[in-house]
Amino acid sequence: MAKSFKQKGKLFVISGPSGVGKGTILSRVLQEVEGDFSISMTTRSPRPGETHGKEYYFVTEEEFLLNIERDNFLEHAVVFEHMYGTPKDEVLRRLDRGRDVYLDIDVQGGLQVKAAYPEAVMIFILPPSLKVLRERIIGRNADAADVIDKRLAGALNEIKLVGEYEYYIINDDLDVAVADALAIVRAENCEVPERVSPIIRQYENETN
Amino acid sequence: MAKSFKQKGKLFVISGPSGVGKGTILSRVLQEVEGDFSISMTTRSPRPGETHGKEYYFVTEEEFLLNIERDNFLEHAVVFEHMYGTPKDEVLRRLDRGRDVYLDIDVQGGLQVKAAYPEAVMIFILPPSLKVLRERIIGRNADAADVIDKRLAGALNEIKLVGEYEYYIINDDLDVAVADALAIVRAENCEVPERVSPIIRQYENETN
Repeated sequence: MAKSFKQKGKLFVISGPSGVGKGTILSRVLQEVEGDFSISMTTRSPRPGETHGKEYYFVTEEEFLLNIERDNFLEHAVVFEHMYGTPKDEVLRRLDRGRDVYLDIDVQGGLQVKAAYPEAVMIFILPPSLKVLRERIIGRNADAADVIDKRLAGALNEIKLVGEYEYYIINDDLDVAVADALAIVRAENCEVPERVSPIIRQYENETN
Repeated sequence: MAKSFKQKGKLFVISGPSGVGKGTILSRVLQEVEGDFSISMTTRSPRPGETHGKEYYFVTEEEFLLNIERDNFLEHAVVFEHMYGTPKDEVLRRLDRGRDVYLDIDVQGGLQVKAAYPEAVMIFILPPSLKVLRERIIGRNADAADVIDKRLAGALNEIKLVGEYEYYIINDDLDVAVADALAIVRAENCEVPERVSPIIRQYENETN
């Protein structure tokens, strides 16, 4: 008998303020689990070393707009004059094949995904404090003080949306945060599916 | 800042057919986590070595009936002429203090608990197959063949109720099953609480 009655993959959305470490957590999680990282589509040009279909799907603006028209984005946004989006068809195809798919995305984008795909497992990464987040942002970029203040104000506004998410993880100790994320993935894969008849049938078949 | 914004404990209900190993899984889980095993009330007499308030609360039938009248059971049942029940007041008191509480209970009892306390985290332990369950039952008791058949038919009827539960764990390899259960507990403790204002306030207070 099967070890699991999983019928479909799950879409895990890892969100949180910029600088909170969601990318680091996700890359550690993907080392441990079976699952695919969702590849975004963008209109920006590939940087040296970047490959179409690996870091991004690099497309023309025309092609991007066609995907919007066809409602083929779980979310999309304009960042610094370039367009970025998560192609819906590919994600759904993977989920249908039983693969889990992982998305690392800002809070607004995460909420777009939830609206387009309500079954998504929504995980919010919180900083231990805004003070720590400020230090992390300073460590990453050489932003001016007023830019940093703006980022922190944005982070607080994003944190106010935590109630839209199902899970929260405080990224204080990275190992603990990764273990939390892995527990969420494992628990979600123990969730009783909507259709239980295939489970019951397996046991019934033994009695015939 | 706190490592967690937990406001209340969670009630974990571990159910499944007799012989599936739910007691073994739960005792392993309780070695790893912070939490209390719920102690049942019973009208049967203590066996040698059993202590009131440890294995059971041993009470008179009169006292038990008074608890029924006062609606002080999360569930109760009659087994071989004796009454058994899970006292509600004590469980709720622990949950209010932020302690997780664990219940090992048959499927019918589990569904009673869910009705009385819908926030309960419902976990169903499945056998890898009825064949394996039969072997485990034979290994435990010296039941006659017809009694074993009756038990297995009962197990199948209980399995048909798996859709009432939130999580399922297949107890094939005990270590895997325990790890599943621990992941569920950890993930549930990452769940965003209903009231998120205490979370948001922690970050807001930093900006004042």
